[in-house]
Formats: sequence, C-alpha cells, structure tokens
Amino acid sequence: MLAWMNAESLACTIDEGRAAYWSRSRQRLWRKGEESGNEQKLKELRVDCDADTVLLKVEQIGGIACHTGRRHCFYTRLANGGWEVTEQPLRDPAAMYGRDDD
Amino acid sequence: MLAWMNAESLACTIDEGRAAYWSRSRQRLWRKGEESGNEQKLKELRVDCDADTVLLKVEQIGGIACHTGRRHCFYTRLANGGWEVTEQPLRDPAAMYGRDDD
Repeated sequence: MLAWMNAESLACTIDEGRAAYWSRSRQRLWRKGEESGNEQKLKELRVDCDADTVLLKVEQIGGIACHTGRRHCFYTRLANGGWEVTEQPLRDPAAMYGRDDD
Repeated sequence: MLAWMNAESLACTIDEGRAAYWSRSRQRLWRKGEESGNEQKLKELRVDCDADTVLLKVEQIGGIACHTGRRHCFYTRLANGGWEVTEQPLRDPAAMYGRDDD
C-alpha cells in the first residue's frame, strides 16, 4: 500500500512501533487499523536516497492491508490492453468498517 | 525507487515497455536510464485500489536503480535511533552521468 506521512505520523510510527499515516481525506493522524483492526506492526523503517519517501516493512495484522479486504492494494494488473483483477477480497469490507478507507 | 508519473509517462511506459516517469526537477518526460543506461524493462504494471498509484515490476538493466549507484534507493535504515546505511554503491555516480538524478 501507499499512503501519506507527515512529521507527526512518522514520529508516531517510530514511537509506537506501528504504522501511522496522514489521512488526507480526514485531515488527521491515522493509525492504520484503528477502525478495521488491520494494524501494521513496524519491523523496519527506511528512507530513500533523497529522504522524501519512507518505506515501512511491517507485519500486517489480520493479513489484510487494503480497505477492499484484500491482502494488498495492487490487485489490478494491466493485461492485454485492459485491467485484470488478480485477487479477490479475503474479508467483506462492510465487516471491517462503515467507511471506505483505512 | 519511487518517482512521479503523469499521463504521458504512463502511456510511454506502456507503449515502449520501459519505465518512464515525470521528472519534476526537469519538468519533462524522463525515460529512466536515458543518461545512465540504467533502464527498466517493464515486466508488469499494476495500479492500486483507488488507481492513483502505479506499481511497476521491472527488470533493472545494469542492476542499479539509484542515482547514487546502488541497486535501490532505500539503503538508509532507522537503527537505534539513528540512520544506518545498509548498502554501498556498486558504481561511481560520476561514471554514470554528470547530473545527480536519473
């Protein structure tokens, strides 16, 4: 998955050892899994060569990172000039939360 | 590595089967490796659940994706409250190009 961070969410991630992001839609700190339970336990934190991208290696609690109920968000693949869905949800999003992002 | 794309670079990537990005510093289409030779041959292209992030799986020609001469850009790891460099350059950046991004 890809999400946004600001200084607060980066500090929170490091302090608490779990992924926190900056929710642009909610305009607030977003501890991943705070609603869905799909928390991400921090295993390693890296930054890129110009230090403006953060890479988190995590243990994905519940095995679901995507708000659609899939393991990850990149389940749509370009194939033969169209888009192919490569994975089906493991869990019904409605069972995870009422809103559509987490 | 992480880089930016726009519609033109996405179309170019698909049409040519090699990674192209939008260079914010140069404000133009940037075919990865056009100066360094470190091209990225497209193996697979995916988008995320809300279709605003593109994931490229590539064959990294030359084995170097980072402008610092490393295999990848995420060679700086948080360790014991400080930053640790986990990989050394495989090639001298000055031998790859005169400018500091590609």
